[in-house]
Amino acid sequence: MTELVSRAQGVRFDELALATRNHGMQLEGMRYDITPIGMHYLLIHFDIPAIDPSTWRLRVTGSVERELELSLDDIRSRPATTIPVTLECAGNGRIGMDPRNVSQPWGLEAIGTASWTGTPLRGILDECRIRDGAVEVVFTGADRGFQDNVEHNYQRSLGIGECGRPEILLAYEMNGVPLPPQHGFPLRLLVPGWYGMTSVKWLRNIEIVDQPFTGIQQAAYRYQQDSDDPGLPVSRIRVRALMVPPGIPDFQSRRRTVEAGTVGIRGRAWCGTAPVAGVEVGVDGVWHDARLGHALAEFAWYRWSYAWDAHPGEYLLSCRATDADGNTQPTAPPWNLLGMGNNLIQEVAVTVR
Amino acid sequence: MTELVSRAQGVRFDELALATRNHGMQLEGMRYDITPIGMHYLLIHFDIPAIDPSTWRLRVTGSVERELELSLDDIRSRPATTIPVTLECAGNGRIGMDPRNVSQPWGLEAIGTASWTGTPLRGILDECRIRDGAVEVVFTGADRGFQDNVEHNYQRSLGIGECGRPEILLAYEMNGVPLPPQHGFPLRLLVPGWYGMTSVKWLRNIEIVDQPFTGIQQAAYRYQQDSDDPGLPVSRIRVRALMVPPGIPDFQSRRRTVEAGTVGIRGRAWCGTAPVAGVEVGVDGVWHDARLGHALAEFAWYRWSYAWDAHPGEYLLSCRATDADGNTQPTAPPWNLLGMGNNLIQEVAVTVR
Repeated sequence: MTELVSRAQGVRFDELALATRNHGMQLEGMRYDITPIGMHYLLIHFDIPAIDPSTWRLRVTGSVERELELSLDDIRSRPATTIPVTLECAGNGRIGMDPRNVSQPWGLEAIGTASWTGTPLRGILDECRIRDGAVEVVFTGADRGFQDNVEHNYQRSLGIGECGRPEILLAYEMNGVPLPPQHGFPLRLLVPGWYGMTSVKWLRNIEIVDQPFTGIQQAAYRYQQDSDDPGLPVSRIRVRALMVPPGIPDFQSRRRTVEAGTVGIRGRAWCGTAPVAGVEVGVDGVWHDARLGHALAEFAWYRWSYAWDAHPGEYLLSCRATDADGNTQPTAPPWNLLGMGNNLIQEVAVTVR
Repeated sequence: MTELVSRAQGVRFDELALATRNHGMQLEGMRYDITPIGMHYLLIHFDIPAIDPSTWRLRVTGSVERELELSLDDIRSRPATTIPVTLECAGNGRIGMDPRNVSQPWGLEAIGTASWTGTPLRGILDECRIRDGAVEVVFTGADRGFQDNVEHNYQRSLGIGECGRPEILLAYEMNGVPLPPQHGFPLRLLVPGWYGMTSVKWLRNIEIVDQPFTGIQQAAYRYQQDSDDPGLPVSRIRVRALMVPPGIPDFQSRRRTVEAGTVGIRGRAWCGTAPVAGVEVGVDGVWHDARLGHALAEFAWYRWSYAWDAHPGEYLLSCRATDADGNTQPTAPPWNLLGMGNNLIQEVAVTVR
């Protein structure tokens, strides 16, 4: 059920209950190329399931010539790839929407970059020989609960064509260790370039289907203007830059205090649709080009920096990225009913002393 | 500055900004004896500091015969102990206070049990030979910021007598790996039995002092009735039991749905002042004895369980622990100005079907 509240009403207790369960990445974590485990963002729809890896099996069923039932050892014995991937929650920035949907109330911290190890999904799909007429692949997790009064296991689908991308993994390690329970142990899907909802955790079934999947978690991730608008599906990550807030914070307000002089403003930028072409830093609305580094990997964030000559006073710093297709970040939230894909420009108020 | 808001006003945006940075332990995490890294609670006053372990040094100064300057290798080469310890934030339960202080708005999830490895503090203090007249030891972290308009590095003190406890560690590993940045890398204090504020992270200085330390983080953790009341210092963890919410949740409301039949209600209990003597489970206010297991270790949580014969309907489940001194959990929040030590009984609404 979509339920909107306005910013003037403050935050609700049910939003808070989600905010303390789900974890944001402290933005100073952008200093690490690879986000340490425990700093990476986490969005968990239901409960973290308890799974015994010795009895756990992945079943591949549906419109295939050969169904599969694979143990964790079977999957680990297949060709393995390790790639750094930046993930972002589709709801990142939701709190900037006004009014906003009552859901996980992210500020800007629903991000992280991990080094994921797994076997390419494509190899598994080749092995089971998909039949003609199949259109999508449905991924089902072991996590179960209610959303909008519908009981279900968390499920998302991906088009057959998309599933052929070689970098889509069935991942069993994160940063060189077995997936922690909260990140999908023993196996999760990993879809580089897409918002995180597609990378189904605690994977237990892959079903190849002949009709588009219409489960609730497909409907829950759409760019709708209102509840009558079917909207477009949320898919790839929109271009975004974020800075590490400079200086030191106030505990409660998080407002920053910075020493005068040359201040290194640093951050990361990423985009799921095209390479990042440039990052700019705004100082009280005047934009300056930042120095953009290389991406850590094709689907991971770029490092950027800007040397700010800071004089005592009050300032509003901001940053924005532009991708190679010319897409940039908006100055007003790109409103949609469910509060998805809000890549509004970050603003950080600082006092220079 | 203490600033009170009432429950009727909802949650504030500055509380939310803290809630998304600081991490609660999902209560289903109580199924693990040792909380996986990334599920353990985190309360970070300022920013997570960036520390180069090769140049980092711990300095032991003040009222001693011999000051010390120790590298991480020096500390790792000393006698090592590994112990499981349950930590809880002193502000856990703050959201249940009405009115409440505007600070980190914990529900009940600011808990975790890790296996900590380090060298006993006592050995270091023996080596530097504390002078007569010393009364406290002040621990200073590398994390710096403002609180109540005072700029400071995070600092807490502990009495000389308390520092002689053999189980107080200078810890450099958590669950068998080097401390993650967010848990205090490269070294933190660990004071078993006390609320977490005393276990100073990112430790860089230990100073032995002849006068009681009066820093802001001592004042920030007191049981005051009002701002004129000096109050008593927050110290050891009050007795508490929590249950893993049974059944499956609703995403937004977190309300639980449970299948009729025998339902295993499970949880943990802990207390920093005395052993846990018993745990009871309440079903609509009628109390039943739970089966209490052994503690995992002297300063770690106990496992408990209760087999509930559940019939279809709506129920309010609760649990409460009692310690060997006869202290139990209150039915109304034990109000204090700063929202500390609220060990109010947990209540979980469930639908049995």
